[in-house]
Formats: sequence, C-alpha cells, structure tokens
Amino acid sequence: MRWAGWGDPAKSRELPDQVLKLLHDLLGVRPPPAPAATLESVELPPIALPEPLLRALAGVVGEEHVLTSRADRVLHTRGKSTPDLLRMRAGDGSDAPDAVVLPGSHEEVAALLRLCTTERIAVVPFGGGTSVVGGLQASRAGFAGVIALDLGRLDRLRSVDTESMVAEFEPGVRAPDAERLLAAHGLTLGHVPQSFEYATLGGFAAARSSGQASAGYGRFDDMVVGLTVATPSGDLELGRAPKSAAGPDLRQLLLGSEGVFGVITSLRLRVRRAPAERLYERWRFASFAEGSAALRAIAQEGPLPVVLRLSDENETMVGLAKPESIEPGGEAGCLAIVGYEGWPATGRDVADGWAGAVEAGRGIPLPARREAVARVLARMGGEPVGEVPGEEWERGRFSAPYLRDALLAAGATVETLETAGFWADLPRLYDAVRLALLGELGSSLVMCHISHVYETGASLYFTVVTAQDDDPVAQWERAKAAVSAAIVEAGGTITHHHGVGRDHRDAYAAEIGPVGVAILEAVKSRLDPAGILNPGVLIPWTG
Amino acid sequence: MRWAGWGDPAKSRELPDQVLKLLHDLLGVRPPPAPAATLESVELPPIALPEPLLRALAGVVGEEHVLTSRADRVLHTRGKSTPDLLRMRAGDGSDAPDAVVLPGSHEEVAALLRLCTTERIAVVPFGGGTSVVGGLQASRAGFAGVIALDLGRLDRLRSVDTESMVAEFEPGVRAPDAERLLAAHGLTLGHVPQSFEYATLGGFAAARSSGQASAGYGRFDDMVVGLTVATPSGDLELGRAPKSAAGPDLRQLLLGSEGVFGVITSLRLRVRRAPAERLYERWRFASFAEGSAALRAIAQEGPLPVVLRLSDENETMVGLAKPESIEPGGEAGCLAIVGYEGWPATGRDVADGWAGAVEAGRGIPLPARREAVARVLARMGGEPVGEVPGEEWERGRFSAPYLRDALLAAGATVETLETAGFWADLPRLYDAVRLALLGELGSSLVMCHISHVYETGASLYFTVVTAQDDDPVAQWERAKAAVSAAIVEAGGTITHHHGVGRDHRDAYAAEIGPVGVAILEAVKSRLDPAGILNPGVLIPWTG
Repeated sequence: MRWAGWGDPAKSRELPDQVLKLLHDLLGVRPPPAPAATLESVELPPIALPEPLLRALAGVVGEEHVLTSRADRVLHTRGKSTPDLLRMRAGDGSDAPDAVVLPGSHEEVAALLRLCTTERIAVVPFGGGTSVVGGLQASRAGFAGVIALDLGRLDRLRSVDTESMVAEFEPGVRAPDAERLLAAHGLTLGHVPQSFEYATLGGFAAARSSGQASAGYGRFDDMVVGLTVATPSGDLELGRAPKSAAGPDLRQLLLGSEGVFGVITSLRLRVRRAPAERLYERWRFASFAEGSAALRAIAQEGPLPVVLRLSDENETMVGLAKPESIEPGGEAGCLAIVGYEGWPATGRDVADGWAGAVEAGRGIPLPARREAVARVLARMGGEPVGEVPGEEWERGRFSAPYLRDALLAAGATVETLETAGFWADLPRLYDAVRLALLGELGSSLVMCHISHVYETGASLYFTVVTAQDDDPVAQWERAKAAVSAAIVEAGGTITHHHGVGRDHRDAYAAEIGPVGVAILEAVKSRLDPAGILNPGVLIPWTG
Repeated sequence: MRWAGWGDPAKSRELPDQVLKLLHDLLGVRPPPAPAATLESVELPPIALPEPLLRALAGVVGEEHVLTSRADRVLHTRGKSTPDLLRMRAGDGSDAPDAVVLPGSHEEVAALLRLCTTERIAVVPFGGGTSVVGGLQASRAGFAGVIALDLGRLDRLRSVDTESMVAEFEPGVRAPDAERLLAAHGLTLGHVPQSFEYATLGGFAAARSSGQASAGYGRFDDMVVGLTVATPSGDLELGRAPKSAAGPDLRQLLLGSEGVFGVITSLRLRVRRAPAERLYERWRFASFAEGSAALRAIAQEGPLPVVLRLSDENETMVGLAKPESIEPGGEAGCLAIVGYEGWPATGRDVADGWAGAVEAGRGIPLPARREAVARVLARMGGEPVGEVPGEEWERGRFSAPYLRDALLAAGATVETLETAGFWADLPRLYDAVRLALLGELGSSLVMCHISHVYETGASLYFTVVTAQDDDPVAQWERAKAAVSAAIVEAGGTITHHHGVGRDHRDAYAAEIGPVGVAILEAVKSRLDPAGILNPGVLIPWTG
C-alpha cells in the first residue's frame, strides 16, 4: 500500500494529455505549486510513549511485534480519504501513532486492552487502513500515547462448516486471502467493495461494509452470524443462531461500532458455493429517473442480479459508468451495469425452464435469471448495449482509487461520498447533494450512481471533481460540511457504506438524535470506561 | 380474549372422548380436582396506587382512559403461557396491574413516562397481551404501583408509500386490522404468527416476532425500516434508510427490547403486494433427519416457498402436523407443510418459463416456484401427499391455543417452547431438549417441528403434553428450568421467536454473558433511570 496514495505502485495510472487539457479547460485545474512530500520529508511527531510503556506493550506481544520505524508509523497514519492523502502529500504526519502493535491472539488483544486502560494509551484498531471517513484518526488528548493495533497477524481461516455454510475467520484476513482460502473449499463470501484488495474481514464488520455484489450476496452485516469481541471490560461471544428473539440483536450493536466498543477477534460468516460463471452487461436508460424506476422494479419484484449499478447522466457522459475507462465517454442517457453469477443452464433447463437446474442443486441458472432481469429492465425502458468482457470488469472494478492519485497529482481534488434513503425520497436527496456541492465548490463535475438496492430504497454514491485551491484540505472540508448538512436536512442517512469515523460524527449525531447518542455513550462508558478505544471516532465528544 | 384462556370463546374446542381416553391411558391424565376459578372468584390485590396518582394519570389521558374495574385488571394480568393460564384458572390474580391506562398519542405516552418516572409507577407496555414468556409480569418491588399501558387506542394506519413500499402504523394495530387496512391498497405485511388474531404490530416489534410465513416474508424485524420510540429520557426516531453504515443499527437494539427501554409509538414497515393465490401442500419424509436435510437444501439453494414446516416423527404420529386436526393421525414418517403465495402463470409463462411472468411485474409465478421447490424436496427424498385445502389451513393455523385450553381443563399440561441454532448443531439441540423434558416430566409426549429456516440454520419448536400433578405450575417450572439449561448448554439460543420476558431471563443472561448483560443494563439505566419500564423483564436483576 502506498503511504500517500492508494494501492500497489505498479498499478498506478497516468492521466492522458486529453484528460489533463479537459480538466484545465473545464474546471481550471492546474498543477499544484509544490511537489508531494517524500516519505523521509513527512513531519512526524516524536514518539510520546515512554520507553517503559513500549516495553510493557512488548511484554504482551513480543518485542518484534512493536514497530516504531518511520515507515511503519507513516503507513498507519489516518486512512485513505482525499483529505488524508492531501495531508500526507503535504508532509503532514501529525496524526501518526507512536507505535504499531501486532497481537497474535485474542488473549493478547485482551491483555493489550487491559494494559492500555491502566496506562491510558489510546488504541486504534487497524485492519486494512482503508477508512475514507477518518476512522483511524484518534484523538491524543488526555492519553499517554496512541498505538495502532494492527490485526494483520490474526489472519487464519479457523474452520469451515459446509453443512451450516459458516466459516470462522480471524479479523485480520484480507478479502482476497479470504476468497483464496474459501476457494479451496469451493466456497465464496462474495463481498467485493472497492477496498477489496486491502481491507480486512474485521474492518468490514466494524464498519458495516457493503460490496459491489450486494444485490446478490447482501451486505457484510448480512453475512455475519457470530462475533467474538474483546473489550476493556471483558469478552463478548455473540451469535448462537442465525436469528433469535432473545432480546436485542447485540451483533448489530457491534457491527458498525468502528472499534470504539471493542476489538473483533473472530467472525463467523455465512458463505456460499462459488459460482461457475460470471457475466456482466450494460443497459442504457433515457434518464436517471427512468433507470432508477427500473432498479426499483427489480428490487421489489425480484429476481435480483448480483451486481446492479446505474450511473446518472453526468457519470455516463464522463465515462465513469465504464470504470475501466478514464477517457471521456460522451455516452448519452444513463448506463447501468448488471452482473450475474451462477451456473450454466443444462439441456434439461432448456426443456424445463429454471426448475431443471434447481434439481441439480445449483439454484436458478444464470441464463434464466438473466432473462428474467432483462425482461423487467426492458419493460421499464432499458435497452441492452452489450456484454462487458469479464476481464475488463475485473480490471476496472478497483481502479477508481488509482485514478484518484493521478488526479490529485494533477491538481484536481476528487472525492466520493454516499448516502441512502427510501425510494420516494431519493430524487430530493440527489438534488440536495448536488446543490450543496456545486454551491460550495463552484465549477465542478458532480457525478452519481446507484449501487445498492433494497425493496424500500437505495444508496446514492457521488463522485466530485474540482480544481484544488491554495488550501485543498480546507476547501474540501467546507464542501463536506455543506453536503453533510444537506443530507441530514433532506432526511437521508449520512453514510450507506463508508462509515462514520470522525468526518461524519456530527452529522451522525444529528441523524440519531440526543437519545441515540446517549445510548452509544452509555454502552461506551460501560465497555471502555477509560475511553481508550478509537477516541474521537463515531461518538461525538460531550466534554 | 378469554381472561383465563385463549381467544374467542365461540371458537373454543372440546376434546373427543377418544383423545381423553388416550391421554388417560398413555399419560395418566385425570381431571383436575378443583374447577377453574370464575372471573368473580379471582383474588386480586387491592389497588395500590393512591387516588391522587390515579387522578394524575387521568390528567394525562382523560378519566375515561384509566380503567380499574375487576375485568379490566384481570384481562391485563400476565400473558398467555401455560403457567399464566394455570395461575388464572387457580384464581391467582396477584400480578394484576392497579390500573389500565390507554394513551391516545405519542405525546400522551411520553407524558405518562415522565409522570411515572417522577412518581415511581411501574409501566407495563401492553399490546395484544399474548406473551408466553412472562413478558407482562412486572415486578412491584419499590414502586408506588403498576399500570398496564394499553396501546389499543393507537390503532391507525398513518400513511402508505407505494413507491417505497413502506406503511406507517401506530403500535396498537392488531395484525388482522393491519392486513385489512393494507388490503384496501392491495398490500400485505405477510406476518402471520399463531398469535395473529390478537397480537399488535408494536408487540411484534418489541418481541422480535416471527410468523408462519417467515420463509417468504421474513421475520418481523426484517419488515421494520423505521421506529419512533418514547423513552423516559426523550424520543428516539430511527431509520432514515433501509440500511446504513451510520454506526450500529439502533433499530436492532429496540427490536426485542420488550418495553424495557421505551415504548414504540410508530412503526414504518416494509409491505408487499397482496398475492392473488395461495396454495398449501403436504410432503412426507422417511425421517426428521431426512426432512431437515431437504429443508436445508431449500434454504441454501432457493427458491423458498412462503411456508415451510416439518414435523418430527412424534408430531406426525399424533397428527399435529395437521394443525386443523386433533385426532390421532397415526401417520408414519414425517410430514411437512409447504405453502406458496403468488400469482398464476399466464399463457406466456407456459411458453417462456417463469421469465414471462416477471415481465408482467408479478415476480416468479406460483406454479414455477412450486415446481422448483418440489424438485428439491423430491431430490432429497420427499414424497408429495396432496394439497391442503386453503380453508382447512386457514382454520387450523391458529387452532393450537384453543386446543390447549381444552387440554388444561382435562388435566393435561400442554406447553410449547422453541430454540434455534446452526444446521450442524440442530441434532444435538433436538436431543438435549427432548432428554431434559422427559427426564424432568417422566411419561410425556414431546413433539417438535422446524418452522423457520435460514441459510445457516433453523428453529426447533417443541410441544409437550404431560399429566398435571398436584402443583402443575411448579411442575412445569421445574421442567422449564431443566430444558432452558439444556438449551444453553447445547449452544442454542433460548428463544427463536417467543421472546425473553421473565421466563427466559436467566438463560438469556447466560447466553449473552456478563458483558452482554452489562450493555443492556447500561442502556437501561441511561434511558430509564428510574427503572419504571417493565421491571423484571428481559434484563436480569443485579441488586
């Protein structure tokens, strides 16, 4: 992972001259005045933790698992939002942890939490480090120091139960490794967010992640059937059954808790059989409204494809509806991507319809599902415009963050934000976000797509591109404040899948109201009385 | 509702002589020595609330909405578990509330909670009064008195949004009224638990209800997209989108909270289009193990029917697999009931398979779904044994509680209990429950069915019949304690859909552990610092 950018440096991208010229002509983008900082030039705060405390930490996990090098500290500083990258490019390492600590077991996590409670050391649970909402930016105030609790050593698949279709994982397993480990059993999670290459299973759970295939596989919180959590006040073991009427579902209180209540040390996840075939195709609609109505019909009538994403007119025109392309597309209308995973039809299927495939234990065959979805889309005004080659989709689906690095270097600010609401409220929410961004940033490109649908509503995912001014972090923070207020005002949720972190904390407080905040504070003060866990994240300050 | 039994007296049932003889011969059941109490002979405690407090309550809701008559108090005493009915039949009205208070608005609920906090009056939120786990049996200790907060006046459908497919209801709407109100819009909730005739929407939410059609419509917690809750510390307004990554899902903390955190005063519920056709059929399997494997295949492969229920050998033999019948059935093997709701196939469907029906906006047609399910069941060893006439099913699906009254009068104790677990754990859980019941009760009839399936597991629902001894309440309490301990030990959840109440409180504490209990206590003490809401229910005593 690049320390001031995204991902594998080998996959970094350059912007074509044509794009640079367009950015300049349309948005006034100019190269930044100063070159980006180097790793050596990043200003890091001195290590605040005194030597005896570092030794005490080493006493729990072993000396080789307490890291204090410049590179280790920088790589565990903040997350991967655009302001995070802009700060690092400017050489600002002020939020670096004092040390990176890597526990090797649940017991070591629990022991660290006890030690850090006693010694008032702030603890930032660290999975893939891919937060885009300031979820890794803990407050130092009142603490002896801050450690990043990197869960990377807890990287095992513990067990697979193919009868219950449940797999137990440690939290530090990265998504590609989880898929590789499951593939050996013919299984898959099917959770593929844009952060897939780096994010961990524990992070998915702590942040209520939702992936590109959520229409088919559900959100990550749908997949979690059990959790083990270490808290400063003891362990939690949740999930004795898929569903229960035994009181509130406490799993749902830990999912989305972003490390402020405890550290997830084990996850029991629902798995599925890995499909034999994948197919992606594009559809065109005359307008975002028409395409939204088609997605709503699919979500309410079924059957669902695995991937369902609709770009608005701007995103379609710019070409981001084809994530593998950064050329201006000039496409008219609105493009949708519809993806299927499953099994081929057999001769029997052809004769009997889909029931034949069901007999063979493979569920609805891919062609039958595709045909059914296609009919709904066509009925709602859609026009099929061809298959997307699988490798093109695979290459393109994780490319946006790499593209962002190139845009930042060119002097453009590019950032994404998202919300969700009920179907009837979406047009108002869409307008409110666009108006807030354009009102604050002036000449900008604002694009949107729907990527997660439910019977009662959907998510809206926005991408904005604008020219950096002299203080691009402050510039974005103003825009972000305006758009967050607009989302709260329009009745949407402040985040559908990015999480709360620090960046959405105030809007989140407005969303759940003072009684909702009181609930979170009550749980926090009971489980983490010293307040060491991710201080400043999720829960608004009260003092 | 009968005060010491279930439901409409006009629907009460008599046991055929053949059944009475069998109960006597097989289980030693003899008529109870004393006749059941009459309403007039029930011993009620004097009204503890002093006159000024009754006037203060009337000051909030109006004098005509504070009821203190014998009949009103008795009808709001405890719930409808077998021990509840046995106590009432014995004339024990010691848990009667001092008064029944009927608020007419959210604001009146909130005002009552403030008043009762100040005056230390315990408040039992009361919907349909159908709890079978002691959920309405509040503790009086330390309170000036106890009121039943009957939500029956909050009985309106507030709004219907057919674009988002969301309907907003007040909490006191009974399930049949909700269906009637929705039917006018061509919609349905599809939530049909055995308590359907009396239970309310608010009660379904507070107790995490699950209905007989859960395979098709989901659990009630799946239907709730928004909640308004009045607490002693202020209001909660939850649910701005179907799903969100904005922190923990606080809706899931209120669902299942059984009135101890607050009173639900409004619910936004996902609705669906009312189906045109319903069809129920029976399948036979050689054994419960074979049938369970078939249900698991359906749950993991799809598509699901709407109703899916499998009786074990005992339940099949006794004939309870046919809920409309109380004759000994003498059926061999294990019977399953499979139900479908949907739309008929059109001429186009026949030609095109199910995709044709999808085009007409009606989802998978009933016949295509039925055919697909049938192929899985047949592949797994099932044998179809004919349709169940719709009216037979409709008549039978709510009959068990009426039958219980007849059995209690005849001197038999009959009670149900349920659990859930992951598929691989179910055989052990099944054995543990049976052994605990038979070990404690001796000669008894223990029957079981699976009625709710998930990809990763299922519920087990047990019915036990035994002869009453001299103290049938104590007799059952011993059996219940043994079986609860067995469920905890075997790793199941203490309840899949009945709730916790008082009866499962200790087992629930064991299930979620001390840190789980600490979370609930922290939330409780923050939202309800005087502890007025349903004291003694859900949350274990600590003092």
